Amino acid sequence: MTERFEILEKTLVKMLEDKKYSVLRDILMTMNPADIAAIFAGLQDQKISLMFRLLPKELAAETFVEMEAEEQELLIQGFSDNELKEVLDELYVDDATDLVEEMPANVVKRILRQADPEMRSAINQILKYPENSAGSLMTTEYVSLRPDMTVEESILRIRRQGVDKETIYTCYVTKDRKLLGLITVKDLLLAEDDETPIKDIMLTNLISVTTHTDQEEVARMFSKYNFLALPVVDKENRMVGIVTFDDAMDVIEEETTEDIELMSGMLPSEKTYLRSSIWELFKNRIPWLMLLMVSATFTGMIINSFEDALAMQVVLTAFIPMLMGTGGNSGSQSSVTIIRALSLDEVRFSDWPAVLWKEIRTSVLCGVVLALVCFVKIWLVDRWLLGNTQITLMVNVVVCLALLVTVIASKIVGAVLPMAAKRIKLDPAVMASPFITTIVDALSLLVYFLFAKTLLKL
Amino acid sequence: MTERFEILEKTLVKMLEDKKYSVLRDILMTMNPADIAAIFAGLQDQKISLMFRLLPKELAAETFVEMEAEEQELLIQGFSDNELKEVLDELYVDDATDLVEEMPANVVKRILRQADPEMRSAINQILKYPENSAGSLMTTEYVSLRPDMTVEESILRIRRQGVDKETIYTCYVTKDRKLLGLITVKDLLLAEDDETPIKDIMLTNLISVTTHTDQEEVARMFSKYNFLALPVVDKENRMVGIVTFDDAMDVIEEETTEDIELMSGMLPSEKTYLRSSIWELFKNRIPWLMLLMVSATFTGMIINSFEDALAMQVVLTAFIPMLMGTGGNSGSQSSVTIIRALSLDEVRFSDWPAVLWKEIRTSVLCGVVLALVCFVKIWLVDRWLLGNTQITLMVNVVVCLALLVTVIASKIVGAVLPMAAKRIKLDPAVMASPFITTIVDALSLLVYFLFAKTLLKL
Repeated sequence: MTERFEILEKTLVKMLEDKKYSVLRDILMTMNPADIAAIFAGLQDQKISLMFRLLPKELAAETFVEMEAEEQELLIQGFSDNELKEVLDELYVDDATDLVEEMPANVVKRILRQADPEMRSAINQILKYPENSAGSLMTTEYVSLRPDMTVEESILRIRRQGVDKETIYTCYVTKDRKLLGLITVKDLLLAEDDETPIKDIMLTNLISVTTHTDQEEVARMFSKYNFLALPVVDKENRMVGIVTFDDAMDVIEEETTEDIELMSGMLPSEKTYLRSSIWELFKNRIPWLMLLMVSATFTGMIINSFEDALAMQVVLTAFIPMLMGTGGNSGSQSSVTIIRALSLDEVRFSDWPAVLWKEIRTSVLCGVVLALVCFVKIWLVDRWLLGNTQITLMVNVVVCLALLVTVIASKIVGAVLPMAAKRIKLDPAVMASPFITTIVDALSLLVYFLFAKTLLKL
Repeated sequence: MTERFEILEKTLVKMLEDKKYSVLRDILMTMNPADIAAIFAGLQDQKISLMFRLLPKELAAETFVEMEAEEQELLIQGFSDNELKEVLDELYVDDATDLVEEMPANVVKRILRQADPEMRSAINQILKYPENSAGSLMTTEYVSLRPDMTVEESILRIRRQGVDKETIYTCYVTKDRKLLGLITVKDLLLAEDDETPIKDIMLTNLISVTTHTDQEEVARMFSKYNFLALPVVDKENRMVGIVTFDDAMDVIEEETTEDIELMSGMLPSEKTYLRSSIWELFKNRIPWLMLLMVSATFTGMIINSFEDALAMQVVLTAFIPMLMGTGGNSGSQSSVTIIRALSLDEVRFSDWPAVLWKEIRTSVLCGVVLALVCFVKIWLVDRWLLGNTQITLMVNVVVCLALLVTVIASKIVGAVLPMAAKRIKLDPAVMASPFITTIVDALSLLVYFLFAKTLLKL
């Protein structure tokens, strides 16, 4: 699939260079807008305008929506006022709003000047809602019906109005702008009697969100209920717009990427990897690296305070990386599992006793097995095979006991911290491996040296 | 939202205990099947059947689909043959197939015996396709139209046949079972002339998948193209079924969870966290922990071989955790970024020179800044504030140089390994932090000790 696409990409670019415009146009016309946009992403700047002008009007607008902000800006800069208006007229309100949100001020001015008055006021309306809210995600173009309309009248109205609506399949029944119910085109088409008023067959038990509902919550409702669209109401339950499933899918992708970035100790990025400058990558990565590096002062202090013990038994140093590494891995396994379960709503804060109990038992199981294997490995490999005679039976016992306690402690810490974060309304994803590793590093060293001091009498 | 739901849950359970069945039934009837299923998940086994029997037939079936496999099995065990048949008759083929795939053999036999012959053969057909393929994900219930039908005839056919179809909004135009085109209900409703044959207005430039396309690929196409449904064809381009967007959303969620689990050094789990036994959690977590623990033998060997140097400058030990930790964090930042970009198709293998060059520059930037800050921190905090006089200027230089090289090396390793995995068709997610940390640990120790030996003349 991907390879075939790369070959297609090269062929099209070659055609553009060879000025075979009419063949190129014919091929582009058979392609999906998302694929055409992917081709644009690989083009040099001056070729983007050239290729874009080959597209017929509607396809051009559909492709424009799928493009990255940088290329959209580039195109708009090159558009005449007339060309800009033509593209804008084909856009849905939510796509136009996204565009306005991403463009610099001078481009926004041009866009608003060319948009028709109705769209301009809709854009301005949506822009008022907080970022990442249902209001900022919605479109104001939906089909609304009156409760006393019959099935036949409703279908007629859809046929008359539908062309400008983002979805016609879910229609909303309103009276004085209050949301009363919804009815799907499927219900209308399959209704037995065309004369039935829709208020008799509409679904009244509605799930809706308010303009200020967080987009993450909105996306979760889509994946839970499998809606095509979700109505957005204001505080007085007046219908103001709908969120469609394609926008919800984008949000899910975005929020998951954000979670993964946070879990790996990065600030969430706004741009895709290849479009991020090294300066942006640096800014997203350095804060956690810096924080964790400085906080490693503690592990350094712990080692220093046991310096005498280490000097007497230098062999103990060799097991530090293994202990810290295993502790870190154990902790991040638990924390990442819990973070994902929390974000999919599979686990709630009130489940904490069950989570804790499960992690304690799992960690004991993991810890015992690891410690036993470690014991045998140290004896066979490190002592006999590598012939390290400094490793006495007691040293081995100290290492394996420390390992057992470290695994148990790190799994508990890994499970408790994300739950606690959830409780105090922090994003649990922040409590993932890098953060937990630092705590677990200090913990495992402390346990190790205390065992060493006690059992080896250092 | 969640808190309100927990209160509702408690109220409903209380009603069940108080045997207020008719009020309970009225409330359940206003609820969404996904929410009712969530209530069931919290019930004790004997109460599940009781509450389920309160639901009206259609709602019961819809709720059944949303339930977890364990509860479905429990219910089926308690069903009479008649009850089982009633539920099965309301299911779509793809949901029935999912059910058959998850139930033990004796339950499957009962299900197939009670399913009507048409559904039984459809289930058997779908079960033949490999797990995680488009074929195993699809439903065979879609609306098919003939190319010479007019708009009016098509609408009539949808109205007659649609009730049993999972989606009616995208209809497929076939001739001799070959897929010729598609037409949406929107196109049909908005068509200007009812007498137009649909072959004149259908979309012929189709995107389809084959029965053997991997489900991850299918899901990616949904999020790229925003389809409601995607046609599935066999090798001869004969239409065999459709995948609907709700199943694609489930796949996306599943595959993302799998990626996150792999990235944190766990085997992918089949069940949700709270439903996994500690034995299952153990089995998913122990392999990587074991492998990484044993591979830490290398770091131990490196430390041992520099034992004499460490004995002369014990202070060097104190910086080992900081170096290894920072290296691990740097590497996992890069690897996780690349893995996510690969899985969203934002980066392809052919981008490797751009990726490498970006990571080199970012890592130099991060490395230099971290090393400088580290130098000042060691001098101010460790040397002056904590008064550790063993830290000489040269020791500080060794630590900071090692830090610089470690950060650069670990970011390069972190970027290269996932790309290489992609190239040899391994899942890049396996190349994430735990694996990279182990390599980086060994690398950072080697660099550190080599600098120490050379610069401190140990």
